[in-house]
Amino acid sequence: MRQTHLFTKTKKEAPGDEVAKNAQLLMQAGYIYKNMAGAYSFLPLGLRVIEKINTVIREEMDAIGGQEMHMPSLQDPALWKQTDRWSDENVDVWFKSELQAGGEVGLAWTHEEVITDIMRQYVSSYKDLPFFAYQIQTKFRNEMRAKSGIMRTREFAMKDLYSFCATPEQHEAFYESCADAYMKIFDRLGIGDKTYKTFASGGAFTKFSHEFQTLAEAGEDVVYVNEEKGIAVNEEVLAEVDLSELGVTKEELEERKSIEVGNIFSLGTKFSEAIGLTFKDEEGNDQPVIMGSYGIGPARAMGTVVDLLSDEKGIVWPESIAPYKVHLVGLNGDDAEVKDYADGIYTALKRRGVEVLYDDRTEVRPGQKFADSDLLGMPYRVVVSRKTKEEGKFEVVTRATGEVRYLSEEELYTDFT
Amino acid sequence: MRQTHLFTKTKKEAPGDEVAKNAQLLMQAGYIYKNMAGAYSFLPLGLRVIEKINTVIREEMDAIGGQEMHMPSLQDPALWKQTDRWSDENVDVWFKSELQAGGEVGLAWTHEEVITDIMRQYVSSYKDLPFFAYQIQTKFRNEMRAKSGIMRTREFAMKDLYSFCATPEQHEAFYESCADAYMKIFDRLGIGDKTYKTFASGGAFTKFSHEFQTLAEAGEDVVYVNEEKGIAVNEEVLAEVDLSELGVTKEELEERKSIEVGNIFSLGTKFSEAIGLTFKDEEGNDQPVIMGSYGIGPARAMGTVVDLLSDEKGIVWPESIAPYKVHLVGLNGDDAEVKDYADGIYTALKRRGVEVLYDDRTEVRPGQKFADSDLLGMPYRVVVSRKTKEEGKFEVVTRATGEVRYLSEEELYTDFT
Repeated sequence: MRQTHLFTKTKKEAPGDEVAKNAQLLMQAGYIYKNMAGAYSFLPLGLRVIEKINTVIREEMDAIGGQEMHMPSLQDPALWKQTDRWSDENVDVWFKSELQAGGEVGLAWTHEEVITDIMRQYVSSYKDLPFFAYQIQTKFRNEMRAKSGIMRTREFAMKDLYSFCATPEQHEAFYESCADAYMKIFDRLGIGDKTYKTFASGGAFTKFSHEFQTLAEAGEDVVYVNEEKGIAVNEEVLAEVDLSELGVTKEELEERKSIEVGNIFSLGTKFSEAIGLTFKDEEGNDQPVIMGSYGIGPARAMGTVVDLLSDEKGIVWPESIAPYKVHLVGLNGDDAEVKDYADGIYTALKRRGVEVLYDDRTEVRPGQKFADSDLLGMPYRVVVSRKTKEEGKFEVVTRATGEVRYLSEEELYTDFT
Repeated sequence: MRQTHLFTKTKKEAPGDEVAKNAQLLMQAGYIYKNMAGAYSFLPLGLRVIEKINTVIREEMDAIGGQEMHMPSLQDPALWKQTDRWSDENVDVWFKSELQAGGEVGLAWTHEEVITDIMRQYVSSYKDLPFFAYQIQTKFRNEMRAKSGIMRTREFAMKDLYSFCATPEQHEAFYESCADAYMKIFDRLGIGDKTYKTFASGGAFTKFSHEFQTLAEAGEDVVYVNEEKGIAVNEEVLAEVDLSELGVTKEELEERKSIEVGNIFSLGTKFSEAIGLTFKDEEGNDQPVIMGSYGIGPARAMGTVVDLLSDEKGIVWPESIAPYKVHLVGLNGDDAEVKDYADGIYTALKRRGVEVLYDDRTEVRPGQKFADSDLLGMPYRVVVSRKTKEEGKFEVVTRATGEVRYLSEEELYTDFT
C-alpha cells in the first residue's frame, strides 16, 4: 500500500480527549477514529490488524472443531424472558428500542439465548452431540462509562463460541481443548508470556470458570499471580476458595493489574433447560444439553497488544498481526531516478508476496518519515535512498529491538519471503 | 466438511411461515435461520456463501482503489442533526435507544454522515483527493414490514463505498469505474445477464442516479426494459424524463418485475457542506468535497441468486459463491471397505485444495442423500459407492445442467483442481 494512496495520516500529537494509551496511539497513528464515547471506527490500517487477529482466532477455533456462523443483533424479548434476562433489573446493559410495527426489540449483548434457540431444530439425539459453533459478531452493551480506549466500549466485535455436549466428559474435554486453544491464540498475538489462565468463580455448575488475564499496568482488573508456579486467581477466588486445593498459598500470590482478554465458562444446563434444548440419550430419555461459552474480544486484544508492546516512539506490532510486515521508507523522492528505484523495490517485494507499506511521499522530510514509521510500528523498516541505490545496501531496522542490518537487494528478498 | 460434523440438517418441508422462495429454500436446506421477522442467522453453509460474495465484492472494490474500513452502528444524534436526518419525520427507519449515561443514540441505517465526519481530519488539500473508502457493515432499518425473505430485513450487512473528489471530472470518472465494477460483480455472482444498470432519479446534483436491477418474478420493483438495446429505466424516470435523450421510446420498453441488487448515487456536496468537509483548491480557496455513495447488499445478492437460479429440486449455486464446489456423496457406508475408500477420496480432494462437502452419513438411504444434495445445490455431485470402488469410475453430475459424466479417479482430480 502506497502511503500517498492511503487516506489516513498520522498526527503530530495524541488526541487530547483520550486518556488510554492504546486509543491515544491508535488515533494518533490513524488506525482508529472515535465516533462517540464507546464507539470507534477502524480505519484501513486498524481494520487490517483486526482482520489478522480474527484470522488467528478462526484458525484456532476451526482447529478444535468450531463451525462459524453469524447471529443477528436484533432480539425478540420473548426469547430472553424465558431465561429471565430481559428486564433491566436483571441485566443493566441492554439497548432497547421499539419496532415501528409494534413491540420492543433489544440489541444482543451476548448470544446464549439466541444460539440455544437455533439449536433446538438440529439436536434430537445424543448422536448429534457434541458440536461447537462460533461467530465473530457485534455485541452492544449500554455501559454507564465507556473506558480504557478500545478496551471497554459500547459496541464491539466478539468471538463467542458455544459448546453443546451430551455428557460432562465431552464437556470437560472440549473445555480443556478450548483453554489450550486460547493460550495458542494469545501466544500468536504476542502476549502469551504475560497471559495467565486465571481461576474465577464457576457459578452453579462448576467450581471454577477461567479468565485469561494479561498482566498490564493499564489493566482494569486485579489478579493474584504466582509467576513461578504459573498460577493466577481473581479476587472472588482469593476470597472464597481454599487455595491449598490449587497448590498455592495466599502469601505466594502477588497482586497485579491485568486485562481480561478472554474467558471460558461452563454453562451447565441453565440455558438448555430454560429454552428447551434437549436430546434423547442412549436409553431414549430426554436430557438437557450441557453447554459452555468461550469469549475473546478482538479489539480488546488489539488494545492489549498496543498497551503492552508499544514504546515511547509508538506502536510495536508483532509480525502475526501487523497491518504490513515491512515499512519501505523512500527518501530522496524528489530525484526521479531514486523514486523509480524505490518504486521498483516496492513492486518486487509485493510480487514476492511481502506485505509492504510504502512511504512514497515526496514532500515529507526524512526525520518526519522515521518518526511516522516508529509511530506506525511495522516490524521491519527498510530505507531506500540515493545512497542505497548507489551502494546496493538496504538499511533494515527491526522495530521491536532497534537492531540495524544492511542487506543487499537479493538478501532483502530472501529475508522477507 | 463432513456432513456428520456439520450441525445443520436439511428439513423435509419448507417452513410454513415463509412465503419468499429464497428464504424457504435456504431455511429448508439449513443455510439460514429466522430469528424474528426481519432478522436472520447465517448458519455455517450460509455464512460461507456470504463470505464468498463479500470476497467478490472486496476484490472488485479494491481493484478500483477502494480502501476498506469499519464504522460503528451506534450514532450520536448531534451529527445527524447537521444534515437534518435525525428526526423521525424526515427519516422513518431509525431504531433509537437511550444511553444509560444519558442521551439518545441511534443505529446507523446508512453511513454518509459518519464517514463525512471522519474524513474532516484527513482532507485539507486538493492533493488529498480523490480517494474511495468502503466497509461491509450492518445497517439497521426499522421497516414497517420485513418482506421477501432475506431481501428486505431490519438488520443486514451492506457494502457501502463512498467517493471523495475535488472535481466533477474526478467524480464522473470514478462513478463510471464503479458502475463497471458493479457489473463485474453481478457477472461473477451469476446474475449478470439478467441485471441492468437502470436509470433512476438523480436528486439535486445530477440528472440520473443508477440502480442495478435484476429481472426476477419475485422482485418487489418494476423496471422498464429494452433488452435489445440494453436499456432500463425505473418508474420515476419513465414518468419524468424525455426518453429520447436515452435513445429509446416508451413503446420500446417492456414492464418487468425486478430486484434492486445495487445502486450508485452522486451526492454532490450535500454532506460535505452540511458537515464541513472542505479542501483548499489550487488557488487556495476552500471548496466542499464532491461525494458519491455506492451500495450492494450481500444477503440480497444471495437471495437473488437463489430466487433466479434454483429449480424444483432446490438451490443451484454458481461455482463462484457455492459453499463447496463438490458434494461427495458416499453410498454403502455400512461396508467398512467402501467407507474407507470414500474417506480416502475425500481426503485426496481436500489435499488438492478442492472444497468438498462430504455426505459421510451411514444411516441415510441413497434417495434421501440425492434429494439433500439437490436441495443443497453444490455445483458438482460425485458419487462414491461399492460400484465405484469396483469399477473405478465416479458418477459426476453437474447440478445446473443435470449433465452426467463418468470419470476415473485421476480424471476427477484433474477436473476439479
